[in-house]
Amino acid sequence: MNSFHVVQWIDGHLRMLDQRVLPHEEVFIDYTSAEETARGIRDMVVRGAPAIGCAAAFGVVVEAFRIAASGIPSSWPQAMAPGLRALEESRPTAVNLRWSLERMRPLLVSTPPGDVPQRLLDEAQAILREDHAACLQMGRFGARVLPDTPGRPLTIMTHCNAGALATGGVYGTALGVIRGAVDAGRAVRVIACETRPFLQGARLTAWELLKDGIDTTLITDNMAAHLMSQGLIDVVVVGSDRVAANGDAANKIGTLGHAICASRYRIPFMVVAPLSTVDRNAPDGSHIPIEERPMTEVTHIGGVRTAAPGVKVRNPAFDVTPAELITWFVSERGAMEHPTREKMRLLFLG
Amino acid sequence: MNSFHVVQWIDGHLRMLDQRVLPHEEVFIDYTSAEETARGIRDMVVRGAPAIGCAAAFGVVVEAFRIAASGIPSSWPQAMAPGLRALEESRPTAVNLRWSLERMRPLLVSTPPGDVPQRLLDEAQAILREDHAACLQMGRFGARVLPDTPGRPLTIMTHCNAGALATGGVYGTALGVIRGAVDAGRAVRVIACETRPFLQGARLTAWELLKDGIDTTLITDNMAAHLMSQGLIDVVVVGSDRVAANGDAANKIGTLGHAICASRYRIPFMVVAPLSTVDRNAPDGSHIPIEERPMTEVTHIGGVRTAAPGVKVRNPAFDVTPAELITWFVSERGAMEHPTREKMRLLFLG
Repeated sequence: MNSFHVVQWIDGHLRMLDQRVLPHEEVFIDYTSAEETARGIRDMVVRGAPAIGCAAAFGVVVEAFRIAASGIPSSWPQAMAPGLRALEESRPTAVNLRWSLERMRPLLVSTPPGDVPQRLLDEAQAILREDHAACLQMGRFGARVLPDTPGRPLTIMTHCNAGALATGGVYGTALGVIRGAVDAGRAVRVIACETRPFLQGARLTAWELLKDGIDTTLITDNMAAHLMSQGLIDVVVVGSDRVAANGDAANKIGTLGHAICASRYRIPFMVVAPLSTVDRNAPDGSHIPIEERPMTEVTHIGGVRTAAPGVKVRNPAFDVTPAELITWFVSERGAMEHPTREKMRLLFLG
Repeated sequence: MNSFHVVQWIDGHLRMLDQRVLPHEEVFIDYTSAEETARGIRDMVVRGAPAIGCAAAFGVVVEAFRIAASGIPSSWPQAMAPGLRALEESRPTAVNLRWSLERMRPLLVSTPPGDVPQRLLDEAQAILREDHAACLQMGRFGARVLPDTPGRPLTIMTHCNAGALATGGVYGTALGVIRGAVDAGRAVRVIACETRPFLQGARLTAWELLKDGIDTTLITDNMAAHLMSQGLIDVVVVGSDRVAANGDAANKIGTLGHAICASRYRIPFMVVAPLSTVDRNAPDGSHIPIEERPMTEVTHIGGVRTAAPGVKVRNPAFDVTPAELITWFVSERGAMEHPTREKMRLLFLG
């Protein structure tokens, strides 16, 4: 199993792998303030809901150390407010970001002022460890309910990157289930959708699965329905950036179309996400904010303009798959078949 | 209305607009043999089923003039056989190509040998004229059955390029319906899917619609389901490369996914294609050959590698939309609601 240094604490600052230039270059960027970290998140140096949650936690830590360097402030909450706001506003859809900040925030008042930076660091490290443990759990739970394909390999389609690169850096959510299947001894083939406009599938998923020696075939997003119609996909496994209280799941743009097509061809559709991704305050998917990103992501590819000049652009970064299209919702608590509001509620009592 | 010199006869040879470098450059390439023309078709200098049909017809003409330059052959069919074969094998899915060659072929024996080149030229010009007339007809028939949207503009989503650039060069099939609606005085907005991997939507559809002053918004293919789920698409209008005898329609990869999603959201789905696109020998879509194109179209964009090295690739260029998902099939004979085998049969008796 490879380990990717997505988010790491090193020499007193935050270091992140620049996912924008993968797989062509492996570049690391250091962050020493919340403002800089927020910019890194917004510009997608790091992406993927759980990874953003980890990055934001360490963004809080570097901000606290930065402030403490010129003396312990009279009010930590006041001193940290601008940095926390910058982090909170960096990206709107992934709820793990806010979940992570809500874990850090109380420590600003519950900790003796001189101990705050170290206490925040301990908490950020705990978030990273828990993320890793949750991924391993999800991988095991998800792998157990993958369809049987006697006498032939299991073909799993995935969209975007819900892998090690989208989490703390080791196992991943959707790709954790794929790794879980491989670890359980199953023969697995992966169909990776390239995931326009940012090409997380072509650049990141293909790269990290090939590093693990997993058989991976790249397609453009619009080939998925054709492959499904030909019986070439056994199951679709994706991550999520925010799951509503009724099980509706926001994920990278394109996921909804895959779910609708999978439903037509009776192909199981699995969403894999830790409980930190569930937003119990969002009654259903219509309450999940959908980020609209810059138009150049659509008109340009790799810095080169491809589209006809003057054309208007829409660039929603996520869509919402209704719970009724989700066959399995896998969290660190187990694999839930056909999520409903009631089942989701019980999940948090467990 | 703009006219694009997609396929033209000029100074005794075939000249085609190189659609691979649009919209950034307008380059023309001259062809003086069937072999060269076949290569141009295969490399997608020209693309779009009706345009390929026209190009192949002129490919036959240039071959005949090339042969005649060194004397009238003792057997035209024999002399032309290699060139005809190269053209026939240049691309497998668009049936207009073969339809066009089948129109030219009998002339090799029915015409006095000395008159063959000129007779072929007359026929190719007739094919081009008929293509234009058919597009105008389809545009009128299709526009009449577009949904009413009282008090607001009609939003039409299209995929790939079924425009002037995909036909003889003036009106188009799917875009002919859009132009038909504009000509009928309707306020129209177009959502153009970029159409990976070759980006015909971003490069060609956006370019030609903007030249006509039509409000056009570009999206990546995987955003279509999201926009449909938000009620932002009134109708989907696409072309076709081959329609089977039961109404199943092969079209650019991605069309099937759009049709499935449109069906879920009860959005009318319209296929626009001339009768030359109907393959009465294909009982249904499973008999339509699907071209698999080079993997670099998927791994590279604009000549730059984007995908992780070493990944496998699938690159089917077309998919088949089953007739049951097609609300309207529009040909130069009229608009047919919910195509069936029986209705398709009657079309050819009309």
